[in-house]
Parts: sequence; structure tokens; C-alpha cells
Amino acid sequence: MLIKSIASQAKKASFITAALDSATKNQALTAVADALQQHAPEIIQANEQDVAQAQKDNISAVLIKRLKFDQAKLNDSIAGIHSLTELPDPVSQTLCCTELDKNLELYKVSCPIGVLGIVFESRPDALVQISSLALKSGNAVLLKGGSEAARTNRILAQIISTASVQAGLPQGWLALLETREDVKAMLALDNDINLIIPRGSNAFVKFIMDNTRIPVLGHADGICHVFVDRDADLDMAARIAYDSKCQYAAVCNAMETLLVDQTVAQQFLPMIKSQLDRADVEIRGDQQTAQIIKVIPATDQDWQTEYNDLIVSIKIVNNLDQAIEHINTFSSHHTDAIVTENAATAKQFLALVDSADVFWNCSTRFADGFRYGLGAEVGISTNKIHARGPVGLEGLVTYKWNLIGSGQIVADYSGPQAKNFTHRSLDKKL
Amino acid sequence: MLIKSIASQAKKASFITAALDSATKNQALTAVADALQQHAPEIIQANEQDVAQAQKDNISAVLIKRLKFDQAKLNDSIAGIHSLTELPDPVSQTLCCTELDKNLELYKVSCPIGVLGIVFESRPDALVQISSLALKSGNAVLLKGGSEAARTNRILAQIISTASVQAGLPQGWLALLETREDVKAMLALDNDINLIIPRGSNAFVKFIMDNTRIPVLGHADGICHVFVDRDADLDMAARIAYDSKCQYAAVCNAMETLLVDQTVAQQFLPMIKSQLDRADVEIRGDQQTAQIIKVIPATDQDWQTEYNDLIVSIKIVNNLDQAIEHINTFSSHHTDAIVTENAATAKQFLALVDSADVFWNCSTRFADGFRYGLGAEVGISTNKIHARGPVGLEGLVTYKWNLIGSGQIVADYSGPQAKNFTHRSLDKKL
Repeated sequence: MLIKSIASQAKKASFITAALDSATKNQALTAVADALQQHAPEIIQANEQDVAQAQKDNISAVLIKRLKFDQAKLNDSIAGIHSLTELPDPVSQTLCCTELDKNLELYKVSCPIGVLGIVFESRPDALVQISSLALKSGNAVLLKGGSEAARTNRILAQIISTASVQAGLPQGWLALLETREDVKAMLALDNDINLIIPRGSNAFVKFIMDNTRIPVLGHADGICHVFVDRDADLDMAARIAYDSKCQYAAVCNAMETLLVDQTVAQQFLPMIKSQLDRADVEIRGDQQTAQIIKVIPATDQDWQTEYNDLIVSIKIVNNLDQAIEHINTFSSHHTDAIVTENAATAKQFLALVDSADVFWNCSTRFADGFRYGLGAEVGISTNKIHARGPVGLEGLVTYKWNLIGSGQIVADYSGPQAKNFTHRSLDKKL
Repeated sequence: MLIKSIASQAKKASFITAALDSATKNQALTAVADALQQHAPEIIQANEQDVAQAQKDNISAVLIKRLKFDQAKLNDSIAGIHSLTELPDPVSQTLCCTELDKNLELYKVSCPIGVLGIVFESRPDALVQISSLALKSGNAVLLKGGSEAARTNRILAQIISTASVQAGLPQGWLALLETREDVKAMLALDNDINLIIPRGSNAFVKFIMDNTRIPVLGHADGICHVFVDRDADLDMAARIAYDSKCQYAAVCNAMETLLVDQTVAQQFLPMIKSQLDRADVEIRGDQQTAQIIKVIPATDQDWQTEYNDLIVSIKIVNNLDQAIEHINTFSSHHTDAIVTENAATAKQFLALVDSADVFWNCSTRFADGFRYGLGAEVGISTNKIHARGPVGLEGLVTYKWNLIGSGQIVADYSGPQAKNFTHRSLDKKL
């Protein structure tokens, strides 16, 4: 089937999924979980074929680890679906209600976005997770996974689609795309597709962002900073900087650049160096840093590089203002932290740093939907529009305005005899 | 100055405007209002020159009416600024607060979007209104008005910029672009500009949307529907349909297509025709309509046309489902209404119609920021992402996450000895 007709069928289905009640959606989720459990042997077998092929094709061990979908990973995916049924329905929530006049009431109500286009690389668990998030939030979804996982994805999509349609979802609400050409075609369908969520490497996300005018929820880079202020508790600063870099270096909320106020550099740099050395972290530093500790000289390129590895760049700044300017210039607007005991300094930093997550006296690694308590994480967004930072289910909904009257017309509220609006806030739900 | 450096200066200024307190912003607004009053003679003189030139250039009377900026219009603009000072500050509002653990508190806080690019046609009052909305919401702004209003815009921008900078706004927070080439250049600067708001004709807005990957807040078309259900109070239906079409035909929330359930068509169509005839409305109808009342035959093109004029298309539908399908296919997702006494039918319509404003038993003409009580209207958006429908000041802000700790690191919340998160909702403000 042409991708255009798949998308247009998804669009039609999305009008129906938008109005499904919570019970139907939760029953469908449970049915999907049960079907996945029941078909576990076929899923695992398909995945083994994918893995065998990948090994034949000399795919890297890291990629193969991500590609692998065994009983343990399947159990995690199924547990994820069950926990989703316990979350509140993000749809049909009355966000506010205003009386415009007697018996003329305005409701701002949450509703699904419509059709989501999800593009992910080789992890099959992403397919399960994102389909169930889409179902819970009443959206239709087009999925494109990595070609290495083609067999696994095909059987997963088929099981999820069949089980959910039997449980009341409309035909075509979920569809799997198979080729790169399909993705290119999808990125052009801005009439039918309302939001693209890319998951995968930075280069991959950047490619998506550069090739569609459909809104994209995601982030290309994660260049995060920790700034050690002159009023920092230096032990705390070392602990936070170490955790931000080393607790898990290969992720988007890990620190890449450490900024240190010149006033405390002499004392702080040897402290942090001895810790980083123990974890075998490569340290690149600017000229001033090099005068205090032994470092590889940093170039301008370092300030705009996401290492995703045990490498850190260090720069000495004159003061808070210079730290903020550096961050606002080089940060990927993901997560940046200050360590200071000075509340006024911290408040300046929190207000002036233009990032999705701006922290005071804690590790950048806390920027995460699970740690934020969002229930389910859709992704992390560095967009400034719609959803920002870790995004929960509320990132998959928008709102509409429902005005409920009893025959009111605007002519009665215009001209010299105009009736007045009451504009009274009401504590009512639709 | 190159547009790229103007935008980059605006970006730098936006980091400062983001942290201005409410008092400073309100004082700056008052200073702007006073300066406009004080320089009224020069503004009006500049505008008279623009109008004279436009008349020489044989610009249409409608455009000249929009271009004209006399003492009365200036007074309206100044009154608008004063009323803006009385609205609550949309920035630095704590949207929610969660305790992640003891002394580790997460605040979701509203903040400005950054740099707005506003493109409007010939109305100089748009320049005043949008600059003051940007100032109130802590955003920097690049403005491009119609070339017919070049002299008026230049003096307005100069007065607003000078007065606000004297009152504490950073240099370069507001800049006026003068040429079409500047606009083209601006539309490409997606690193520095965060939101484009186009105001003007549909063709103009469509051009902007088609030529930038910066998010656009606005709407190209306003193809709105009224559906007269089989259970409608037909007198009410005629009153609402008439108001939706005739109260002001040249606006985006006016009805373009009237859908009538076949069950009541025989009775309803002559009723509405006699009213529309009195207002000299041209009626185009489908074949079934033509069998009941005298109409010009409608073509498929009619269902996707925004007349912006005293013309209406009428189509008879079999039932609610067909009405919803027609609307979801042809509506511009702006505003659509149902007239019915049947609550179950209405609820279906409210849930299934995929538009920003979905109404029950009232005129489509109510879709408007002033009527909604939003305080100030930034525009009407048919986007599904970010802001939808009439957009108030909240459409010019986004949010950031501020996490405030006392030295917490993620390592303590990981592994076998992991501390638990409390994830307790707190009633605190930052």
C-alpha cells in the first residue's frame, strides 16, 4: 500500500481513537500485553533470526545488544504496558472552564494530537513502548524501526495491531513502515501526520529534523554543563560534577563541559582531577585550566561537542555572567546546573539560562522522565514549543476549546445594546 | 546591519528580557504608552505621508483604511498598552512542583519563548500591539510590516524601542526589518528565532508557513461549519447559522458551509433561505439542497473555499457521522458548531470533530480571544502543537524545569542500594 494511503487511513482512524473511553483503551492495552506474552516464542524466534543476520553482516556488538529482544526484555515491555493502564487518561481532561455568560460555558479540554510518526533505530522495545503510549493517549501511529530488526518489528506490529483492533481500536490506527523511502515519504505528509518522534543517534535525529516541516519532538544533542560558582561548596561541586560526567557517560543528560569560576579554580581543579583520573576520564582544558592541572588543550570545537564518552572539557570563567553566556552560546539547551551556596546567584542562573532543565546543587543526570515522576517518558525535548525537557504522556496530547451554549449569537454581544460577558471562572468539568 | 546580526543581538537581549521582573516590564509599557502619546503629531504626520503615497500608488480603499493610523487609532493602541499592564505576568509562574526527595524539589516554571518574528501587513496598530505583548511576556521581537506603512512603522518602532530601553529593556530587544529580503533571511534563522507569528491575508500566512521551519503560530484558512442536526431546535439553528455567516462575513470565524441533516432539510432550508436572502447572501447548494430551495449549484471546490464574503455553501448529509466526516475532511480545523437538543449527539460531535474550537448551540463567531476572556489576543492558531484556537499571552511563553537540590547525585538513586524517590506533589512556588 502506498504510504500516502496508509497515512490517510491512520488519519481517519485517529478521529475514532480520539473519542475512545479510558476503559476501552486500558482493555486494549491489557489485550496487547496478553497477546505479546502468548506469542513470546514467535517473537523471540523472529528476533533470533534478526540477530543472526546482523552477526553475519558484521553489525557492531553494541548495536546487536540493542537489537536483542529476549524473554527478559519482552517481560519488561509487558510490565511497561501494565503500568501504563494504571496511569490517568491524559485525554478528555478539562483544563479550565470559563462562564462567558449564563448558559454559555467554555471548556478547554485535552485531546490527542492525531497521527504520530515514530522513527527509531534498532531497539524493538521502542516499538512496544511507543505503540502503547500512543494507544493510551488516543493517537494513531506510523512506526518505522531499524532495518536490522525488520522481522522482530513485523511480528510485534502485527500482534499489537491484531490484539488492539479485536479490543475495539479502529483498523489502521497502527501501521509499520518498512523502507527508508517510506520514511522520506512520511516526512512530507504534513497534512496527515501531526508529530514526528525520532529516537536514536544524534545524527539520525538531526537528519529527521532537517528533512520535515512536521513538528518534531526530540533532541539532537545533549551538551550539558555544570558551573562551579565562587560560592560553591567545593566538595559538593566535585561530587555533582563527577556524577554528572561518570554515572553514565553515554547519555544525553551527562555533563560534557565543566565551567569553574576563576576565584575557586586553584582549589577546585586538583580536587575534581583526582576523582576524574580514578575513572579514567580524559580531561581537555582551556589555557587557564592548563596552568593549574595537566590537561589536553581544548579547542573551540570542544565547547560544541557531545562526547557521549568518558571525556570532559573544562573552562575557567571570570564570573556568573560569563558562565551564563558560555552556556547560552554552546549548550544544546538540554540540562545545565550550577553549584553554589549563594541563593541570589542561583536564582540568576535559573532565570537566565535558556535550557529545558536548569538545576541548582544537583546532578544533571536527574533530567529524566522516570526521576521526574512523569509516569511514562515519551522522550526528552529541546524544542521551546509544545513540550520541553522530559516529556510524559501529556506531550502526546493537545487541547481543544468546547463552547456550550443555549442558542447564543454574537450579534447580541455587539453594538450599542451589547450584552456583557461575565468571564467567570467555573470549577466544572465537561 | 545584516539581519543575521540583528537576530543574534535580539537573541542576546532575549536572555535578559527573560529575567526582567514584572514591575520593570510594566513601567516600560507605561513609558512606551506615554512616549507614543507625546509623539502623536510626528506619528500621525508620518502616517499621512504613507497614506498620501498609497493613494498616489492607487492602493485599494480597503488597504488604505487599514493603513490609516490617526489619533483615534493611536488612542486605542495606547489604551491597549495600559490594559496590558494590568494583566498578570505570564512569566515565572510555577506550573507545578514535585518533591523528588527530601530537599530535592522540581519546579515547572513558565518562561518566555525567546525571539519572536512578527510579520504583518499594512496595519500599524499591529506593530504597537505585538511589541507590547512581546515586552509583557519577556520576549525579544523582530518586526516586519507592510511596505506601504514604512514611515509609520519606522517612527513607531523607534519610539517604542527608545522608551523601553530607557525604562530598562536591553538594547536590540526590538528591531524593525524593512525589506522582503530581510523577511526571507529571517525565515531561515531557526537558530536565533523561536516563533514566527504572521498576520495578514491567508495567502500571506500560507507563504510564511511554506517557507520556514521555525514554528508558526497562526492560521491560513478559516473554513468553519455549522451542522444542523435532526434533533435541532430549528429556530435556534437558523439564528445561529445566520449569525455565524452574517454578523461579520469577512473574518476567519465566519461560517462558510452549512451542513443540514436530511431529516430536517425540507423544513429548515426554506427558513434559513428567507433569512439569508434578506441579507443578500449568495447560496450555493449541493444537488439535494437544490431540490428543496433555489440555489447556485455547488461544486467540490466550494467545500474547500473560504469565501470571506456574503456567500454560503449548503450540503445535506445523511446523519451525524457524515457531517463529522465532511468537517474533518474539509474544515480548516478552526471552528465548527453543531445545533442539537440531543446531548449524546452533541458529545459525539465535540469529541470527534478535530478542530481548535468545537461548539454546541452557539455561533462560530464566539471563537475570539476577547470573547473567551483571554485578556489579550496574540492570534488564532490552527496548529495542533503548542497553542490552539484563540491564543492569549500564554501562547508567548513556554516552560523550563528547575530542580533545586542540596548536593544530590544520581548514583545514590541507582543500583542495589538505590534510594527511593518520593514523587510527592507540593503546593510551593519558586
